[in-house]
Amino acid sequence: MGLKSSDQKQIEQTVGRMISAGRDIALAYFRQPDQGLANKLSDGFDPVTQADKEIELAFREILKAERPMDGILGEEFPPVASQSGYTWVLDPIDGTRGFISGTPTWGMLIALSDAQGPIWGAIDQPYTGETFMGGLGRAELRRAGQTTPLATRQTTTLADAILFTTFPEVGTANERAAFQRVSSVAKLTRYGMDCYAYGLLAAGQVDLVIEAGLNAYDIQAPIAVVEAAGGIVTNWKGGPAHAGGTVVAAANSDIYAQAIALLNQ
Amino acid sequence: MGLKSSDQKQIEQTVGRMISAGRDIALAYFRQPDQGLANKLSDGFDPVTQADKEIELAFREILKAERPMDGILGEEFPPVASQSGYTWVLDPIDGTRGFISGTPTWGMLIALSDAQGPIWGAIDQPYTGETFMGGLGRAELRRAGQTTPLATRQTTTLADAILFTTFPEVGTANERAAFQRVSSVAKLTRYGMDCYAYGLLAAGQVDLVIEAGLNAYDIQAPIAVVEAAGGIVTNWKGGPAHAGGTVVAAANSDIYAQAIALLNQ
Repeated sequence: MGLKSSDQKQIEQTVGRMISAGRDIALAYFRQPDQGLANKLSDGFDPVTQADKEIELAFREILKAERPMDGILGEEFPPVASQSGYTWVLDPIDGTRGFISGTPTWGMLIALSDAQGPIWGAIDQPYTGETFMGGLGRAELRRAGQTTPLATRQTTTLADAILFTTFPEVGTANERAAFQRVSSVAKLTRYGMDCYAYGLLAAGQVDLVIEAGLNAYDIQAPIAVVEAAGGIVTNWKGGPAHAGGTVVAAANSDIYAQAIALLNQ
Repeated sequence: MGLKSSDQKQIEQTVGRMISAGRDIALAYFRQPDQGLANKLSDGFDPVTQADKEIELAFREILKAERPMDGILGEEFPPVASQSGYTWVLDPIDGTRGFISGTPTWGMLIALSDAQGPIWGAIDQPYTGETFMGGLGRAELRRAGQTTPLATRQTTTLADAILFTTFPEVGTANERAAFQRVSSVAKLTRYGMDCYAYGLLAAGQVDLVIEAGLNAYDIQAPIAVVEAAGGIVTNWKGGPAHAGGTVVAAANSDIYAQAIALLNQ
């Protein structure tokens, strides 16, 4: 399924309005005392804030007006069926734990998908003012009116690679052991960056992001951005990652092959 | 030992020039391909970049011209003895691992100390443009020409607290077990923020930072900022932390007492 260039232009304008509206809401709540914080779990801590809900509603309102035939899959509200073959996949705040801690590493995730998976995505960090965008033939970082191309880097050996993940407690016990096999070979393992890690991978700053237990809305925008920048994203078995679950995102095929081998050892 | 207000004014101007010079160097290297990266360890990975060295040299040049009687203790070059009773304690890039990974969470640390420890400090993050400053009667965050007061928050129960540390592998095996006792009670534990975590503590965003294996230049600026914002910083035994080693930094005395009790259980 191909998009006409007039469609691409309209999509770009729609996304610009979504990011602008989302940033206004996010920054009105970020580091403020009353974030309307609630816990989604009775056993454990899965925070959601008023900002999560308001941003997703703002996204949906813009899409309803400007892309009424497209479907919507978002974290906070029920799905809308697609009549066009395209679906918007939305995570209003990826990294809510970082958001409520005041770190500048959470992000708004917006992806556009067809039946095969994401064809375009954006990772937006409102506080640093960065948008990592990829798909439809482009991969770029936008900040403060400047646009720079995104390209993954060519580290060839895992022993020279920088690896990111969100929590040290990656997935199940078996998944954690698999992660540790990769981490023990990598030069450096860092934590706590949420979706921002995929932006850094696309920007050629790090070499690998490995996670588990993801949802479709956590990973579709990162897939589009990383792939457009030259990287590879699959699940740990080498299959499609856009439905969620385990994810390995690599800067290039050398690093990817070494990571996959260790994950499946 | 007290500082005259004319001295305070001069110090503030000197620090302004240090931060400005340091940011220029840091941002000229940040996310660029050639960072002159070297490893300080033959066994392990302790990175230092050309930016670390150039920033500290720039700091020292300004201090030599403007505060020639003060001592200097910096990470990258030999100490300068104090003839005034005051010493500048400098870490040009705290969080070099974050710097080389492209995260916006490293910082330039500048502290001014007398014989009892730090009396003033700054944590500066050049990419976000934030300076967390504290001491000499003030505690404030400066960003883009705006100044907002810093104040720690009043969470009273560890079970409601957000805890930060840099690595999951905190210190020795015993130290790690002690950290885990606190982490297992806290609402949320996050990693990978380096000195930025102390800025968030001072800003009332998080409740606890616990680390081990620090050097004097890693912790003196954070001590000044956190204490000026109303927090408490000691080593894990409750003694002074400004020489380095273990550190517990808490938003208030309630959280501090609960953390210290678990660390020493």
